Amino acid sequence: MFNEYQHLRIPGPTPISPEVEREMSKTILGHRSKDFSDIFKDTCEKAKGIFKTKEDVFIIAASGTGALEMAVANIVEPDDKVLVIQTGVFGERFAKINAAFRANVIVDKYELGEVANPQRIKKILSENPDIKAVFLTHCETSTTVVNPIKEIGEIVKDTPAILIVDSVSGLVGMDLNMDDWRIDIVVTASHKALGLAPGLALISVSQKAWAIIEDHKGPKFYFDLISYRKNMKNNTTPFTGPVTLVFGLSKSLDKINNEGLDNVFRRHMLIKNMLRAAVRAIGLDLFIEDDNSASATVTGIKGNFQIDVNELISVLKEDYKIIIAGGQGDLKGKIFRIGHMGYIHPLDILTTISGLEMALKQLGYPVELGAGIRAAEEVWCDEKGISK
Amino acid sequence: MFNEYQHLRIPGPTPISPEVEREMSKTILGHRSKDFSDIFKDTCEKAKGIFKTKEDVFIIAASGTGALEMAVANIVEPDDKVLVIQTGVFGERFAKINAAFRANVIVDKYELGEVANPQRIKKILSENPDIKAVFLTHCETSTTVVNPIKEIGEIVKDTPAILIVDSVSGLVGMDLNMDDWRIDIVVTASHKALGLAPGLALISVSQKAWAIIEDHKGPKFYFDLISYRKNMKNNTTPFTGPVTLVFGLSKSLDKINNEGLDNVFRRHMLIKNMLRAAVRAIGLDLFIEDDNSASATVTGIKGNFQIDVNELISVLKEDYKIIIAGGQGDLKGKIFRIGHMGYIHPLDILTTISGLEMALKQLGYPVELGAGIRAAEEVWCDEKGISK
Repeated sequence: MFNEYQHLRIPGPTPISPEVEREMSKTILGHRSKDFSDIFKDTCEKAKGIFKTKEDVFIIAASGTGALEMAVANIVEPDDKVLVIQTGVFGERFAKINAAFRANVIVDKYELGEVANPQRIKKILSENPDIKAVFLTHCETSTTVVNPIKEIGEIVKDTPAILIVDSVSGLVGMDLNMDDWRIDIVVTASHKALGLAPGLALISVSQKAWAIIEDHKGPKFYFDLISYRKNMKNNTTPFTGPVTLVFGLSKSLDKINNEGLDNVFRRHMLIKNMLRAAVRAIGLDLFIEDDNSASATVTGIKGNFQIDVNELISVLKEDYKIIIAGGQGDLKGKIFRIGHMGYIHPLDILTTISGLEMALKQLGYPVELGAGIRAAEEVWCDEKGISK
Repeated sequence: MFNEYQHLRIPGPTPISPEVEREMSKTILGHRSKDFSDIFKDTCEKAKGIFKTKEDVFIIAASGTGALEMAVANIVEPDDKVLVIQTGVFGERFAKINAAFRANVIVDKYELGEVANPQRIKKILSENPDIKAVFLTHCETSTTVVNPIKEIGEIVKDTPAILIVDSVSGLVGMDLNMDDWRIDIVVTASHKALGLAPGLALISVSQKAWAIIEDHKGPKFYFDLISYRKNMKNNTTPFTGPVTLVFGLSKSLDKINNEGLDNVFRRHMLIKNMLRAAVRAIGLDLFIEDDNSASATVTGIKGNFQIDVNELISVLKEDYKIIIAGGQGDLKGKIFRIGHMGYIHPLDILTTISGLEMALKQLGYPVELGAGIRAAEEVWCDEKGISK
């Protein structure tokens, strides 16, 4: 009866809605057929809305890291000086990809939980006018911080460098305005706030970045952006595209547009605030204390009261069918993370909070049952304007 | 009523069976979860069977070309001498990828429709003992020839070079024995004879090839085989794997094993022979006259009687819901191709033959209705041992 029953609350893959699931299951089409090209064209056009850009948005059959590599492989030549803002595991991944492509990498490393500092970045750029590209993570999934992209965009735009942003776990969950914020390359993936299965990545490129890409000599083929741009003119991909994921993406974008992108952001913010209020009421500590520095798509919680994080995760999974994530890298065992992006309703986070209260009680921690739920419901009522 | 009704007879993507479709639609799992790792481990283990290898088979979130690049990116250093056997568009693609990675590429180019010549390859290898790798296409989808992998493997095994085979449209449709035939790297993809949606590629590597990969210095990250091998020990992928396609692959492999791999080959061969007999009876010319040189997964037919190939393709699609493919590259407009791999029953090729007879009649060509069907049914009856 309940063997597939679950509440998937990790920071991706995220739950897939029935509508998107049905769309991904519709009869497959040839990737060069007119029927598919029509859907592809419409989908790429709709995708510009979530990037807030006038530029083309390209679809790649790869997971998010493939598109991060695409950003590096089309820009960086050996010995080019690049700046990587490292606020966690995914900033570190950008540094590793750049190292693999023989870049001269300057790493601006932050304490775990700290957000990127625009003034520090401005100083590094002024001391290194030869920096070709700045690599930045929007939502750093490992620490659950959100970096100040807009402020950093303001700084990078006045330099020869381009700004490359990994928004894999940010886009659609939190506002990002590629054109107004002067971001040169934005990358995202299907299995986060877009609520699809993994295997599709999206990338968009500014004119400032195209000027570099057109002169780029380094080795690339599957990830060669020029060939994607050329094929886009015929509403197709250079290589076989992820046909069924494109079906799902089209439906997911329609759902986002029907709800209204600003309402999608508000929903993520509401769920974030409900969860944060609940965590505080339960007596746990948030890994990111400052609400403005905390992601709206994933929340990190400290394993205080000497919580055994792994024990909590397994009780939630076994007894409550709620699947959450532990810490990554140096935060393994120190924090646990609850993902709340994409196909998630405020009621779903209440379910997660209930499970958390009961699992903690079950493990013998001093928790007042219902305290977290009450705090979360109050946040929701406030947002609805329902007086207490 | 019939808006999704179709007979998809292109050389990939291919039809997806209801069982595989349901499996790909089952509730998504986290890519690092124990539940997914168990499925992943079992699936990679089963995949060894279709490669006929003892080596690990790796799963990549990419389409076939991504895995072709993986083979190049882990083996080739700038200026390395490589031999590319070019029997069509996909051999040409191997040459392009090698050129992108700055290899010193020797291209052994064949006439369109010609198969690779083992003795010619032997001569080139003896004249160039410094060749590091030989790139070969199993089924050349563009010309519909099948190359003599086994004979070429016999030759390459006695040289320092490794043999890299693109079996994207070959594996499962035709026999390939990676270990016995001494193939060092085999690549295939999900949307051909495996009958899945596009977005998943498979690759396996011999010990002879690992020795080169372990010393390889060139830039790579998403396609870095060493990181896939390291993660395989923990039954996972270095980056987010194509979770739902792995569900489907597991089911597809079960279906192949239930039918029996040899029976799957026999079914493809029967369908090939039924279609070839029909084409001859209808009075059309096969692009590959020699049955032994012709693929069991895709058949190329010449546009004789001054057939307007594009007109035929559109009548088949509009009036009969049968979708076939035209020619690629220099064969555009000269041939049409019928794909018959994966989830296809002999009855399905009879449907295609009927549509072809009627579409030709409709276009005013001298066709005796039923002649193709009669010939195809005779082939099937012979195979069943039913006397005429």
